[in-house]
Amino acid sequence: MLTQKELDALFEEFRQSDEERALVEEISSGLISGIEKILQDKGLDAKVMLVGSAAKQTSLKGGDVDVFIVFSKKYRREEIVKHGLSIGHEVLPSGFEKFAEHPYVTGFVEGHKVDIVPCFAMNLNEKIQSSVDRSPLHEMYVKERLDDSKRKQIVLLKAFMKGINVYGSEVFRSGFSGYVCELLVIELGTFSKVLEFFASSGKRLILHDGNSVNLFDSSLIIVDPVDDRRNAAASVSKKNLARMRILSREFLHDPSSKYFHGELDRSRAEKNRGTSFRILTMPKPDLIDDVLIPQVRRLDRMLMTILEEGGFMPVGSEILVDSRISILIEVERVTVPGFRVHHGPPAESPETRSFLQKWSTTEHFRGPYFLEDRLVVDVRNPYTSLEECVMHNLEGRDIGAHLTPMYGSIKIIDPDDSKMYSGIISSYLHRNILD
Amino acid sequence: MLTQKELDALFEEFRQSDEERALVEEISSGLISGIEKILQDKGLDAKVMLVGSAAKQTSLKGGDVDVFIVFSKKYRREEIVKHGLSIGHEVLPSGFEKFAEHPYVTGFVEGHKVDIVPCFAMNLNEKIQSSVDRSPLHEMYVKERLDDSKRKQIVLLKAFMKGINVYGSEVFRSGFSGYVCELLVIELGTFSKVLEFFASSGKRLILHDGNSVNLFDSSLIIVDPVDDRRNAAASVSKKNLARMRILSREFLHDPSSKYFHGELDRSRAEKNRGTSFRILTMPKPDLIDDVLIPQVRRLDRMLMTILEEGGFMPVGSEILVDSRISILIEVERVTVPGFRVHHGPPAESPETRSFLQKWSTTEHFRGPYFLEDRLVVDVRNPYTSLEECVMHNLEGRDIGAHLTPMYGSIKIIDPDDSKMYSGIISSYLHRNILD
Repeated sequence: MLTQKELDALFEEFRQSDEERALVEEISSGLISGIEKILQDKGLDAKVMLVGSAAKQTSLKGGDVDVFIVFSKKYRREEIVKHGLSIGHEVLPSGFEKFAEHPYVTGFVEGHKVDIVPCFAMNLNEKIQSSVDRSPLHEMYVKERLDDSKRKQIVLLKAFMKGINVYGSEVFRSGFSGYVCELLVIELGTFSKVLEFFASSGKRLILHDGNSVNLFDSSLIIVDPVDDRRNAAASVSKKNLARMRILSREFLHDPSSKYFHGELDRSRAEKNRGTSFRILTMPKPDLIDDVLIPQVRRLDRMLMTILEEGGFMPVGSEILVDSRISILIEVERVTVPGFRVHHGPPAESPETRSFLQKWSTTEHFRGPYFLEDRLVVDVRNPYTSLEECVMHNLEGRDIGAHLTPMYGSIKIIDPDDSKMYSGIISSYLHRNILD
Repeated sequence: MLTQKELDALFEEFRQSDEERALVEEISSGLISGIEKILQDKGLDAKVMLVGSAAKQTSLKGGDVDVFIVFSKKYRREEIVKHGLSIGHEVLPSGFEKFAEHPYVTGFVEGHKVDIVPCFAMNLNEKIQSSVDRSPLHEMYVKERLDDSKRKQIVLLKAFMKGINVYGSEVFRSGFSGYVCELLVIELGTFSKVLEFFASSGKRLILHDGNSVNLFDSSLIIVDPVDDRRNAAASVSKKNLARMRILSREFLHDPSSKYFHGELDRSRAEKNRGTSFRILTMPKPDLIDDVLIPQVRRLDRMLMTILEEGGFMPVGSEILVDSRISILIEVERVTVPGFRVHHGPPAESPETRSFLQKWSTTEHFRGPYFLEDRLVVDVRNPYTSLEECVMHNLEGRDIGAHLTPMYGSIKIIDPDDSKMYSGIISSYLHRNILD
């Protein structure tokens, strides 16, 4: 482990400074009193809460400000959404609406991102309908169990996770949430103990063991103390968990501040790979990343399956979403033979008759002949080029709610024909343990 | 089934004519009396027998003449071989020695191939050391059970099997022996019933069911009535059995004399297949087919495995043995990428440390990076061309007793560079159900 002095220095580097915290408090108390006044004017039965890391003082530098309006359960979901949005726009005139499990208002105040989120008041282990309703309970659970020493460990853990690219519970990141970091430190005590937990060689990692553990089919189970039917770590992807495990092990054996700074060596990249690159590109619909990125990732996986089944031997792919959507694909070949070997029934089957009948009249490349003791024919492939294969297989298919209507705009490009794509290719070729 | 008249005509076409049979009898009785005289002069305790199809009058046109010298068991194996070869050379001055399980003399008399084979006298179900000793027992078993009607059915069956290329028990053919044809007709009665036996949909075909059947792990079991620990059909390859089953089924549904004449339609052959051809070629050692062909076939299979594992995606191959040995190979590609993806240990394993250590210093193409939740690196391929891969993998390997010493003479040729190989390519491209 790093020395106490080194850890102290990293804590100072990544924590919110006293000035920043004072500013966040000023912003949030301004918002809270503004909202409380509106609630009173409208006669609404609701409380206002600062939640998230700002409330618990576990924020990294530049953290968000999350203000929740906790409504009485006498209202209906539509009512609290309507009031929540209207109040949000009133206190954040430059804000705009976003959509998680229901809509909320987001904006910036003096450089800090602010979310104004309506939710329902809930009790421990009560059946919850929308995950936003759970946040105030998380808030209370964590606050009761923190002291300054634990806050410091949480800041170090979050900074480490951010440095190795596994932090952030947004759908498109699939990393560790701030709440999971807090639970880990509350349960295990220190940053160092948390890393030992991940570095261990257990096949499954389980925190808060209990009756409900068997409900979860996951390699990392952190039972949510406010709702024991929920795995608080469910949104962590297998890849991020693997990265956290492997790099915790590395760090414990050879600790260095480079993990916190995202400065692990870039991997080498040999350009002359003997493969081919293609880019699938299409316009970008106007959507937030949490909605768009999962659709693009799904299209990417679909593309790899199509190329695999088509015999183009895909090696890998890389997604780039900027002003357009681009998916870089590397394949071992961009054309396949004009035929494939089609197997007939086994020799004892009466079906050999109809097989021979069919291929005496149907057009094909060769045969029927024997491969070992099996009748086969060489049948024509429906396509021989990668472009034909991909376009044919995507046509009429559900490639994501917002992407399917854009099928007609999809193009498949050879990146050698354009310098536009040198960035994505370089990023793909330099892919390393942090990507 | 064909009409009786059609069957009669085929029988007349394929059986030995009366003139030919008279000639064979003249040849064999000349040989037998010659050998008997020598045995008497030398005072040897042995009998002379005409065996095989000539003796049983089940020969096809141009059949062989097999004369066995059946020695008393008081001699040793080396003695009967020595005497057998010496007598063979005396009665067949133009003959030469061949080697089955032990040496014998073979030659031609008036256009007919003649074998003079020494063996031991045996009794039914006695433990047999050399399969040649079994022939006189087969002889007696079959002769007792034949009449003219059955002989005719046997000739039809042999002619059908020859027409569809499954007849002949030589090692390099791996087809049905004459003895198996005789047993099938003795047991099942007619040519037609034998085809029904093969056309049935049973997974395993079993003749002469009995306690010993479980000894044999084969799809076709014909227990030898003179030695019930032996499967008389053991030498039939899976491919020949499959062909016999499928074409028996076809023939029974749509009988035609073309099966007897090897005139099933040649398959179509599309030349523009989008693949590549290469030829492995080497000098031919001076050996009989039964010794050489199995070695060439083994090399062919080894080659296909090497190409498969090397990533060249072999499609098929064809063997040609004339003045040289040539193996035609069709592959989907003749070069492979410069690297392959090498998987590291799972995330929970402490071995991730040594994996990362190794690939921080060992030369490679890319990574370590993540594929799903697994660490991988792109490692350099030891070769990228088919020629390098094949020569590297054959070097120092046992490629057959008589082929290994010729490793240095192996060449791999692109058949596009030479017109010499158009025959083998055409034969490969026209491969059909009879090949």
